[in-house]
Amino acid sequence: MSGRALHSTPSTVTLPGPFRLESGVTLPSLTIAFHSWGRRSPSGDNAVVVCHALTGTSDAAVWWPELIGRGRALDPAHDYILCANVLGGCYGSTGPASPAPDGRPWGARFPRVTVRDMVRAQQRLLDALGVTRVRLAIGGSLGGMQALEWALLDSGVERAVVIAAPARHDAWAIAWSDAQRRVLAAVPHDDEFGHRTGVAAARAIAMISYRAPASLSRRFGRDEGEHLEFSVQDWLAHHGRSLAERFDRHTYLTLLAAMDSHDVGRGRGGAERALRTLDKPVLVVTVPSDVLYPAAEVERIAEWLPAGELARLDSPHGHDAFLIEQREVGALVQAFRRRHEGAPRLAAAGGGA
Amino acid sequence: MSGRALHSTPSTVTLPGPFRLESGVTLPSLTIAFHSWGRRSPSGDNAVVVCHALTGTSDAAVWWPELIGRGRALDPAHDYILCANVLGGCYGSTGPASPAPDGRPWGARFPRVTVRDMVRAQQRLLDALGVTRVRLAIGGSLGGMQALEWALLDSGVERAVVIAAPARHDAWAIAWSDAQRRVLAAVPHDDEFGHRTGVAAARAIAMISYRAPASLSRRFGRDEGEHLEFSVQDWLAHHGRSLAERFDRHTYLTLLAAMDSHDVGRGRGGAERALRTLDKPVLVVTVPSDVLYPAAEVERIAEWLPAGELARLDSPHGHDAFLIEQREVGALVQAFRRRHEGAPRLAAAGGGA
Repeated sequence: MSGRALHSTPSTVTLPGPFRLESGVTLPSLTIAFHSWGRRSPSGDNAVVVCHALTGTSDAAVWWPELIGRGRALDPAHDYILCANVLGGCYGSTGPASPAPDGRPWGARFPRVTVRDMVRAQQRLLDALGVTRVRLAIGGSLGGMQALEWALLDSGVERAVVIAAPARHDAWAIAWSDAQRRVLAAVPHDDEFGHRTGVAAARAIAMISYRAPASLSRRFGRDEGEHLEFSVQDWLAHHGRSLAERFDRHTYLTLLAAMDSHDVGRGRGGAERALRTLDKPVLVVTVPSDVLYPAAEVERIAEWLPAGELARLDSPHGHDAFLIEQREVGALVQAFRRRHEGAPRLAAAGGGA
Repeated sequence: MSGRALHSTPSTVTLPGPFRLESGVTLPSLTIAFHSWGRRSPSGDNAVVVCHALTGTSDAAVWWPELIGRGRALDPAHDYILCANVLGGCYGSTGPASPAPDGRPWGARFPRVTVRDMVRAQQRLLDALGVTRVRLAIGGSLGGMQALEWALLDSGVERAVVIAAPARHDAWAIAWSDAQRRVLAAVPHDDEFGHRTGVAAARAIAMISYRAPASLSRRFGRDEGEHLEFSVQDWLAHHGRSLAERFDRHTYLTLLAAMDSHDVGRGRGGAERALRTLDKPVLVVTVPSDVLYPAAEVERIAEWLPAGELARLDSPHGHDAFLIEQREVGALVQAFRRRHEGAPRLAAAGGGA
């Protein structure tokens, strides 16, 4: 869950509506903000879709710099790399901060969206951009849930990398969402101050779930803080404040609900059955120190997938290892791609359609 | 972290003041509410001190029924069992709800107390009751921190059982306190409603730390709730509500700060040094699934203590296992006592002074 905002302005595409959500509710139109790196091959078969996490943005090069670049796991010399702000987000895509049909922001009226809705919105973007094949869908946390749904929903996706994301949001993860939601509800939010206080308090809770005991205790111990009594409190306050400055409260609630909706088994006879019939290569990366999505739970994805591959990311940092241990993540992704794609293909040489 | 309130009225003793806190601040007087089971031996050498956790009460037979009783680990036929509401508590002992010198409740003005202050207040109670020796000091969580400080502070304590409690509150645990404190601060508390909303929201966060992924996910999975979307949310709401009905907001803040103060090494050259010089038998019980106080951290107490003994409580329930797995805890305590005390001594036959 990136701690950074946008460094460059995303491109924006407004797609003809209506866009029908999984709930049956329709959005009159759909705007998707996205970043891209590299060039689409003539046949549009060299796309790589990067999916961001809860508070991430479409500017993946900001939060995953070690994965994107010449010679890296996602290489603009060969890949047409796309990252879209999720449906319901607050970084340019249609979401609670967008105008509703009455011209005012949707706010709390924004309909519930699911992870599948997010993927379907991105599919529309890829169609508009002339993409025919997706070499790889990849993401961590909420991004990993999207990557897995990409593999399930889209026959044009060749393979996926799912990092620190479960097959379904289970009671433990729902409880974490609930604690954040409860705080967002309990703090009065009728003014900017309350809005920020609630987001900051929710973020402080979330930060615990993104790290791990060894990670925090080794770094901070019982050290005195500069502003608060203990330095770990300063750290939580800092993370709370910086998210509150850049994130929309309604988007926070919308994306928590989307994560809670996550269940690859919904309408597919259960998670195990859904995954046993998916025969694409999927690399599942778990973090043994992950508090939010325990590795044992995430590993079941790899067990159930006929072509699932498992890699464990050895890190003391818990869930956030997918953002902190970028070099390790990049190496795992690069090795996975080489096993399945061979040497990188140049964009110009790509495609056979 | 008992979910229950008092079932019977505690005894109350008001001790002559002033009572000097570790901070140097003095309380003009000290009232201690306590429960007892069994009878004091003539020489006062058969005491067992039970220490309660954050939201517990002096009525230990309510929250630890399987440990207290005839033939059980703590046996009123032989032991003079005492459990006092902690200093700073809201179940009868001096705390934020007690009257300050100006006659109004202390509220937010109540001074900071430490775990050592809690133990010293209980020592005063035991002196007043004519207790000369403590056969056993025992507790889990905040109660375990007190039990360890009892062993360190009081030469009359013969042995201790420390369950799911660390030698020092490290950054990870402080972060959990901070999240709860932040919510208690962020929710307006100028009326009863806000008071309760804040306590309930803080409790919902805490409940996550007291359980574990397998515990919640096995029990609730993605089951629908009766009132909220998911049943785990109903469960969190229930726990929030029931604590809000019975617990004082200022006591909550006071006890969180006391837990954060916990460091057996303070003024003793560090935790390891403090524990290496304590040669009493201490049984350290860890819970491998404990999210709040990771077992590896708690186990260091047993490693450092010259006469430390370690037992692992195999439970999916995390930190709260000390309340949930009472039969197991009782068996461990009973075996520990038999090893060191031999067969139970009758109260009447106790003492040699």
